[in-house]
Amino acid sequence: MHNTVELQQILETAIQNLKYPESPKQLYEPITYIINLGGKRIRPLLVLMATELFGEDANKSIHAAMAVEVFHNFTLVHDDIMDNAPLRRGQATVHEKWSTNVAILSGDVMMVEANKNLAKVNPIFLKDVLDTFNATAQGVCEGQTLDMEFETRDDVTIEEYINMIRLKTAVLLGGALKLGAIIANASKQDADLIYNFGENIGIAFQLQDDILDVYADPDKFGKQVGGDIIANKKTFLLLKALELADNNNSNTLQDWISKENFDSREKIEAVTNIYNSLDIPNVAKQAMEGYLSKALSYMEQISVADKQKEAIMSLTMSLMARQY
Amino acid sequence: MHNTVELQQILETAIQNLKYPESPKQLYEPITYIINLGGKRIRPLLVLMATELFGEDANKSIHAAMAVEVFHNFTLVHDDIMDNAPLRRGQATVHEKWSTNVAILSGDVMMVEANKNLAKVNPIFLKDVLDTFNATAQGVCEGQTLDMEFETRDDVTIEEYINMIRLKTAVLLGGALKLGAIIANASKQDADLIYNFGENIGIAFQLQDDILDVYADPDKFGKQVGGDIIANKKTFLLLKALELADNNNSNTLQDWISKENFDSREKIEAVTNIYNSLDIPNVAKQAMEGYLSKALSYMEQISVADKQKEAIMSLTMSLMARQY
Repeated sequence: MHNTVELQQILETAIQNLKYPESPKQLYEPITYIINLGGKRIRPLLVLMATELFGEDANKSIHAAMAVEVFHNFTLVHDDIMDNAPLRRGQATVHEKWSTNVAILSGDVMMVEANKNLAKVNPIFLKDVLDTFNATAQGVCEGQTLDMEFETRDDVTIEEYINMIRLKTAVLLGGALKLGAIIANASKQDADLIYNFGENIGIAFQLQDDILDVYADPDKFGKQVGGDIIANKKTFLLLKALELADNNNSNTLQDWISKENFDSREKIEAVTNIYNSLDIPNVAKQAMEGYLSKALSYMEQISVADKQKEAIMSLTMSLMARQY
Repeated sequence: MHNTVELQQILETAIQNLKYPESPKQLYEPITYIINLGGKRIRPLLVLMATELFGEDANKSIHAAMAVEVFHNFTLVHDDIMDNAPLRRGQATVHEKWSTNVAILSGDVMMVEANKNLAKVNPIFLKDVLDTFNATAQGVCEGQTLDMEFETRDDVTIEEYINMIRLKTAVLLGGALKLGAIIANASKQDADLIYNFGENIGIAFQLQDDILDVYADPDKFGKQVGGDIIANKKTFLLLKALELADNNNSNTLQDWISKENFDSREKIEAVTNIYNSLDIPNVAKQAMEGYLSKALSYMEQISVADKQKEAIMSLTMSLMARQY
């Protein structure tokens, strides 16, 4: 068994060993570029941790972990085109640095590369691994579609929002864990439990993101506090505020949403004040804790000793504990 | 065993049975739309024919055939974005009918759907099937990259051009046949032979397309004769003409290529005259026949009775025989 630092080293080595053909350069250089922008590598780490949770060596699931990391980076490349994003982790996005066509095609071949990594897993588990991976990939595409669709709708419900973030971000965490479990030959029941753990943790993470975007310490937060408010992003906080607001607050919110010219600080302050008056931060925190506690109850039901659950639990808690 | 008409019926039924979730509509409606635009279904037909060539029932490879057809349609959706094409088979392309973002995402989920179909093949063959499919998909992405790259280069060699069309169109024909062979439990040698047959046939088809674009009967040709000449498309004919031309012809060709304003009929006539004076149609036909005869020699080496090869051979010959 390996500790978390060792698992991270296994991952980094494997990532650096991902090699692509020399040419066509335009097809393969963006893959190395986007993957080397870094990131916390949480998703592939979860694959490895799930394998060790069920008593097998993490090296057995390293190819599945690479498939998940390459797939995740593929979604970043295509999402950045769709969101017209100039920057990713402080660097130019692929479509900015090369072109939209290059970003489309490089993304496509990354999907193929993810599948090539997947095909390397032990053939005994291949069918299950493919079914889990494909269901996950399909969910992520659905989530991105809903996210885009919600931008042009003004009747998005909280339930729809939760379903969107479940698909867009949470199923990949659940899927990563389930892949690791399958490769460790975990029972179907345990594999489903760890999937459900991951999915609920993923929703909790996203709700935390929504809260931090408004309430993080500006000195420590990596980006502008209030960015979601400025962009009228339909987060849990905004949707809940629109649901709970009286006529007066509702009109004020709608006014700010429809304003084309405004002072950013003024808008952030006004909307935050409404959130505060409606107790939105606590309502959001309670929702987040609800998903967290659901996740933990799935984890409890998994049939391995508590001692073995420590690594995943401690990673989860450290991610949930961040205040910025 | 089934005759070609029966195989086409099996295919059409399977295509009509491809079902996708109801929502998000924007993600799934384009899949049904593009697939129902039709086409000759040559690629999935080759999967089924290869399975029967090696003595197994075509129904065994129907899922692989669907994977190939869905993958092929995925490439059409993404290529149409990159080529800025308004029409596909006389109808609006997906990015025109919906939007570029919808076309990117629908294409992505079609790649997932192709993989879902693939995961349904007999697990005994799954690893081989995946390796063949992924190598094919990677080749197609490389081919499309080279095709785009060639548009901005003026030093493309014949060798590079043949490699580009091999990747962009021929590997998928070879891959389709090889998938059918694998699922029929053909020997590795036979599977490679049928792959090579398909790849060489694919190159021959493309060279024929290049010739027909200039020399087809305008009354029967589905599109404008001379379209490649108008667009300065770097086909085998143009590259060969540039290679063989004396200074005088070369200058005339370059003049026509660089002209921004011209009469289409005049340009087509002038360039065609140069092609004729350099005997380009015959040179191209000889190159095409070279790949055809290479293909046939691979087919001859396949260890099944000639009688069983008839269906694939007759399909191939009918495709090669078209004059428009």
